Amino acid sequence: MTVDIDWVNEDFAFDHVGIAVNSIEEGLPFYQALGLKNIQYETVESEKVRVAMLTLANSAKIELLESSDSSGPIARYIEKRGTGIHHICLRVKDIDSTLENLKSKGIRLLNEIPKKGAHNCLVAFVHPKSAGGVLVELSEPQEG
Amino acid sequence: MTVDIDWVNEDFAFDHVGIAVNSIEEGLPFYQALGLKNIQYETVESEKVRVAMLTLANSAKIELLESSDSSGPIARYIEKRGTGIHHICLRVKDIDSTLENLKSKGIRLLNEIPKKGAHNCLVAFVHPKSAGGVLVELSEPQEG
Repeated sequence: MTVDIDWVNEDFAFDHVGIAVNSIEEGLPFYQALGLKNIQYETVESEKVRVAMLTLANSAKIELLESSDSSGPIARYIEKRGTGIHHICLRVKDIDSTLENLKSKGIRLLNEIPKKGAHNCLVAFVHPKSAGGVLVELSEPQEG
Repeated sequence: MTVDIDWVNEDFAFDHVGIAVNSIEEGLPFYQALGLKNIQYETVESEKVRVAMLTLANSAKIELLESSDSSGPIARYIEKRGTGIHHICLRVKDIDSTLENLKSKGIRLLNEIPKKGAHNCLVAFVHPKSAGGVLVELSEPQEG
């Protein structure tokens, strides 16, 4: 599809959607049936999560999130809401200035200081109460 | 971020995430605070929905979905689950063959025949029960 360039917000990209699954083994077959074949795996110890990543043509990813521990945030989410879409992540150019800007506008942040996330990115989460019930992650890729 | 080309699923792109909001007026301020300025509006009568679209740098979109009628699918979703992420949409090259392929693999479809969706696309939805609790839309852009 051609996109009228006036309507593109150049400083933001859609990085990924995070989907809470009981297990990667249970969550993956639909995407494999669809024809998505290339999968990368990563464990993020700090979030108690195992991740299966499917990278699409426009560099956006689908991430299947399996809790590696029953006390982890994904396990708790599934307990409350069932499996399904857990969060979206937007890629930003400068996460520090983005957080500073949001704070100055009264947006509640779950992380005021960015932390290290998957794929060597700096990440921070916005409180869903400030984003219409959506858990929004912001991510700045780091070199290397 | 550089993406190792071996891991990219070239035939699929992330088209948009659809977010159920009470009203566009209520849902938009967070994204405007973030710095997303360019918004396109569209009404999809068949889905009883008004849409505010924010197109990001990698041609993925955030779509805020406001029900134009209390009997519409978005109004019913909010009644049951509250505001939040309603569905994801993947852009495919050939929706007919994609649906044929999914059917042959036992995936349940909400639309076996594609219908006309927003921005002149052909769309079809997969049943959440076949996709780990996620409502997945498939979309093939049409020329013109």
